[in-house]
Amino acid sequence: MRTRTLEELAKHVGGTIHGDPKITVSSVATMESAQPGDITFYSNAKYEFQLKTTKASAVIVSEEIESNAALLIADDPYYAFMQIVVLIYGHRKHKQTGISKKASISESAKIGKNCNIADFATISDNAKIGDNCTIYPGAFIGPDVTLGSDCIIYPNAVIYNNCIIGSRVIIHSNASIGQDGFGFATHQGVHLKIPQVGIVIIEDDVEIGAAACIERATLGETIVCKGTKIGDMVAVGHGTKVGEHCLLVPQVGIAGSVTLGHHVALGGQAGIAGHITIGNMVQVGAKSGLSNNVPDGKVLLGIPAMDANKTKRIYGTLPQLPDMRRKIKQLEKKLAKLEKNEG
Amino acid sequence: MRTRTLEELAKHVGGTIHGDPKITVSSVATMESAQPGDITFYSNAKYEFQLKTTKASAVIVSEEIESNAALLIADDPYYAFMQIVVLIYGHRKHKQTGISKKASISESAKIGKNCNIADFATISDNAKIGDNCTIYPGAFIGPDVTLGSDCIIYPNAVIYNNCIIGSRVIIHSNASIGQDGFGFATHQGVHLKIPQVGIVIIEDDVEIGAAACIERATLGETIVCKGTKIGDMVAVGHGTKVGEHCLLVPQVGIAGSVTLGHHVALGGQAGIAGHITIGNMVQVGAKSGLSNNVPDGKVLLGIPAMDANKTKRIYGTLPQLPDMRRKIKQLEKKLAKLEKNEG
Amino acid sequence: MRTRTLEELAKHVGGTIHGDPKITVSSVATMESAQPGDITFYSNAKYEFQLKTTKASAVIVSEEIESNAALLIADDPYYAFMQIVVLIYGHRKHKQTGISKKASISESAKIGKNCNIADFATISDNAKIGDNCTIYPGAFIGPDVTLGSDCIIYPNAVIYNNCIIGSRVIIHSNASIGQDGFGFATHQGVHLKIPQVGIVIIEDDVEIGAAACIERATLGETIVCKGTKIGDMVAVGHGTKVGEHCLLVPQVGIAGSVTLGHHVALGGQAGIAGHITIGNMVQVGAKSGLSNNVPDGKVLLGIPAMDANKTKRIYGTLPQLPDMRRKIKQLEKKLAKLEKNEG
Repeated sequence: MRTRTLEELAKHVGGTIHGDPKITVSSVATMESAQPGDITFYSNAKYEFQLKTTKASAVIVSEEIESNAALLIADDPYYAFMQIVVLIYGHRKHKQTGISKKASISESAKIGKNCNIADFATISDNAKIGDNCTIYPGAFIGPDVTLGSDCIIYPNAVIYNNCIIGSRVIIHSNASIGQDGFGFATHQGVHLKIPQVGIVIIEDDVEIGAAACIERATLGETIVCKGTKIGDMVAVGHGTKVGEHCLLVPQVGIAGSVTLGHHVALGGQAGIAGHITIGNMVQVGAKSGLSNNVPDGKVLLGIPAMDANKTKRIYGTLPQLPDMRRKIKQLEKKLAKLEKNEG
Repeated sequence: MRTRTLEELAKHVGGTIHGDPKITVSSVATMESAQPGDITFYSNAKYEFQLKTTKASAVIVSEEIESNAALLIADDPYYAFMQIVVLIYGHRKHKQTGISKKASISESAKIGKNCNIADFATISDNAKIGDNCTIYPGAFIGPDVTLGSDCIIYPNAVIYNNCIIGSRVIIHSNASIGQDGFGFATHQGVHLKIPQVGIVIIEDDVEIGAAACIERATLGETIVCKGTKIGDMVAVGHGTKVGEHCLLVPQVGIAGSVTLGHHVALGGQAGIAGHITIGNMVQVGAKSGLSNNVPDGKVLLGIPAMDANKTKRIYGTLPQLPDMRRKIKQLEKKLAKLEKNEG
Repeated sequence: MRTRTLEELAKHVGGTIHGDPKITVSSVATMESAQPGDITFYSNAKYEFQLKTTKASAVIVSEEIESNAALLIADDPYYAFMQIVVLIYGHRKHKQTGISKKASISESAKIGKNCNIADFATISDNAKIGDNCTIYPGAFIGPDVTLGSDCIIYPNAVIYNNCIIGSRVIIHSNASIGQDGFGFATHQGVHLKIPQVGIVIIEDDVEIGAAACIERATLGETIVCKGTKIGDMVAVGHGTKVGEHCLLVPQVGIAGSVTLGHHVALGGQAGIAGHITIGNMVQVGAKSGLSNNVPDGKVLLGIPAMDANKTKRIYGTLPQLPDMRRKIKQLEKKLAKLEKNEG
């Protein structure tokens, strides 16, 4: 790794220095594991004690704070950290292999410039792949799928027929896009498959985690709007619209026909029932369950989900519940006695 | 798409018409996105307002209702909708490719008539594939697996050795059937693997979602009975029996040695503990947790799962919990005062 | 299957016999399905009634108990059961195919002795594979990955670049190891990808279930320590350390930067929030949610997770909650009346 001065880094992120600007760093590490020559990063107060023990040469912080490392002070230290990681390491490099002869590529598929298509990848009939895409082994691009430019499709990810994928989309290993929605008409006790004739649209700059599953719509589209990031094993149901710049943490489940606004953040294992509308900027805590519409800006928690502060008060009271029951019985007895005495 | 009159469609589904029977439709759409020439569908009261704004030429309903579209009235409108979607679009067509030379097919495998076996699909030793099966790229059919006729195995689905799959079974992308059950004997602090020598049996007309995981039994069988539909990322544990015509919504988890009756419906992210028996026709709400036997016909909700109406009453009371605690304290004080005065 | 006497089996597991030591068995079955010639196993009191109806020739038990089968009495009957299943069936046999010409193997990869590398498996640049490994079709071993000896990588499992896998590791179908952690810096409403430059380390004797997802660390390592067993569809977040000999049941989710001690057991669908430390020997019930540090040896249950006995008492009281509310109202009325009379 090439060495950079703290001054160089501060300039790169628009930050200021508290300490020797000539200190050099060549790599990034956590506060705990950092060694001289590393720059590290502090944001969570839980780790404040490490500021005084870290062996890092420098630490990115939001304000002056006591540390045995030089400080790089930035308005948005996590953003500065990201910029420095990108500067020092860059994003994953993909081998420039071109189009493998061991891939399976339909004659009717159209493939853009500078694409890497690996052994055992499948590009089906009439699929269109934009420029600079990298498609890893075992990935399956179904018939009539459209892929924008600069996409990365990791090993064994599957995109079913007719889905439309934007540019700079990253789809991780074993993810499924466009499999049939869970739609059946039950007649005389038998569940009959409703052809899922809709598609999935994934807009630009979306990232989809490993083994995530985005169902195609029965009719029309399931949409994941631009800039949204989806974690591993997230389920998105048929006909659902996930707005722009949402964060869906691993193992979230969203049923069908749901509408999510923009900048919605759903915590791990949260679940959203079908046919509801979640407003913009809504935050939902991990493991919460929602089954009603939610207006913009709400912060929710719990099963059923309520205002997060209210749920926290309920959580604080729950341990008292058996004791409360006992006290109510005592009160009833005492009151009966008083009433009797009075009567 | 070929055009059909409303009269034709009504005849097809055994319904009646309210409006002009000569109206023609060529496609199906949601009420919101429908255009002239579309037929649409109304069932959820939440969308009643759209009946008056939809641009659809016709709408499938269960009874006369005000709408600016012609009505196709059917006893079971969702079933009629399904029949019309099948009539107009049919189910997914699979390219008739025959058996690819780029597939890996054991010499000892037996393959029925009219099968499509794609590039990079694996058919292992002694596997038997029925007639008219379509096996997509990257799918793995393990040694000694039996597949009935008319099955569709989507890309990268995996079926481990010796499992038995019925006819007309659909297995979506990245699903795993027959991987080892989670079975270990812990001896002196070390977890020792118990060979999982059982199998998985998937009966006729089952559909299994993307990335779903059905463990093989330690001994004997894990069974998914005929007509059951399993969503994406559903986990079924070793030795469990899922009865006929069940609906397991995405992200449901069922532990090992569970018995489910027929027509059981489990909501999204519901979990069933091991070694219990769930009766026929049981319905379990999303995110519920069950750890006790359940008799036939129960409708359950919550963690722990109780009668759904009871759970809803509890949910209605939970927000009062902090206030209840406060009131109990007040009551205690007031009562103590009364007792003192009395004493 | 070769036939063995009960005497032989008792000697093998260090147990004693109650019944005829010359009885022969050739297979293992559940108590319910066993036939003469089978040995079976009893541990769960729920199945005690089957001891008197089983057709098995012998049953493994922990103490003398009434049964119509001969008894094989062992100190740790589940361990004895495991030993007998291994003796009679052994673990899964993998076809000794050597290295397929239809695999994709980089010239710079190093492959140990006696490996089986199947058709359509990918071994990327500079990957090192130890001796006696079996790599199934569609499995992807990324660039610079190290695999120890005696590993089994099932179909379509994916290991991203630079990850380090120990010996005797089993990775089931469609699992993902080392995909990018869910790490984004949000700047002016846009989520910017932080390069995930860390790796995943999987130590010796770990087993990872189907479709499980282990994220690589942003910096440093995500570690799964030796002997830990991970179920299907378990999520492990970036930078998390899972200690030795843990059991993570299917659909468990662990966020990033978590530390788990050794012998931690997490029940199905349990969730662990980020940046917390769970002590050794901690047991967490199914569906529980943890967001605080946990000392050694705790047994927890619930959302939020508390001492399991406390949570069970709360669960026992919850059904009374609407009634408690009603009683509080009555008490208030009666007390007001008393106060009035007094006043």
